[in-house]
Amino acid sequence: MGRWEPDAAGRLREAAMALYAERGYDGTTVAEIADRAGVTARTFFRHFADKREVLFAGSEQLERHMVEALAAAPADATPMEAVTAAVLATAEFFDDIRRDYSRRRAAVITSTPELRERELIKMATLTTSLTDGLLERGVAPDVAALAAETGVAVFRVSFERWIAAPDDVPIADVLQATLKTLATLTA
Amino acid sequence: MGRWEPDAAGRLREAAMALYAERGYDGTTVAEIADRAGVTARTFFRHFADKREVLFAGSEQLERHMVEALAAAPADATPMEAVTAAVLATAEFFDDIRRDYSRRRAAVITSTPELRERELIKMATLTTSLTDGLLERGVAPDVAALAAETGVAVFRVSFERWIAAPDDVPIADVLQATLKTLATLTA
Repeated sequence: MGRWEPDAAGRLREAAMALYAERGYDGTTVAEIADRAGVTARTFFRHFADKREVLFAGSEQLERHMVEALAAAPADATPMEAVTAAVLATAEFFDDIRRDYSRRRAAVITSTPELRERELIKMATLTTSLTDGLLERGVAPDVAALAAETGVAVFRVSFERWIAAPDDVPIADVLQATLKTLATLTA
Repeated sequence: MGRWEPDAAGRLREAAMALYAERGYDGTTVAEIADRAGVTARTFFRHFADKREVLFAGSEQLERHMVEALAAAPADATPMEAVTAAVLATAEFFDDIRRDYSRRRAAVITSTPELRERELIKMATLTTSLTDGLLERGVAPDVAALAAETGVAVFRVSFERWIAAPDDVPIADVLQATLKTLATLTA
């Protein structure tokens, strides 16, 4: 108790995921997650607001990562090129280590209506953040909203395909394939 | 009481919208909505499951309308042509009479987190239904999901623009403009 924990957040995340798979999300308490991770409930609450947020802290990191990539796109990039930079930047986030976690997380979310709703809200927030990033780049509002929605659609579809794909398929390949499909679709 | 009501659903919808604007969504009860519409609470529950569903019964009609238009597209239509048919069919739904209602509905939804979530869920359900419709047309799963997401994005962006536009702008024009923007974006 009170001892310094090198990666308490990571262990809490793993503990939560294991318990959600074993007992279901609704059947798991914060006390049990903290116990499994070998920390106190107080430590849990230093890292996460509640048992739901254990699953969504990563979404906020992903959003920041995408927004930064959008802002870092060359000044003369078209709106879709800037959005594409943000979408492709998710490949740095979803590496092989995150693949297994992502699959288990998706299984928990799919089976819990409250979490499915939360995921939809996170995706809507991501769309708004990307729209704002495009507006800051001087893109017209209508174009910005549509480009952001389209980019999030490409990410969502790719992410679903990636977690269903064999282990040797990197998300970067799936993202590129989906972007190509989009170009063909709307040609 | 018990008398036949020619358009109880319509009057309940109008009464709910007026009360949500006056007292807020959270501050309004089913009993008050029924009272304002001149019907009993029992009549309310014959039409709607709860005070939230008053606002979302139309979403289900819209979804059916779009799915039918998708299914009715020519057999040789491309996936995006079929989705475009579904998107353009919303113009038959959102006529001038629905414009004012749509604006008031959007204001209530924007100001109530529970309703914003519900709206996101309805849009996700719509995306799934359009994806299923494309699968039935023999479209490959990856293409179907992306085409459906893109179509819903076009609809969402257009709908937001339409309710913010002057009264003489029909939604059909906004939908066509957004489809043109999409083609330019991804060219």
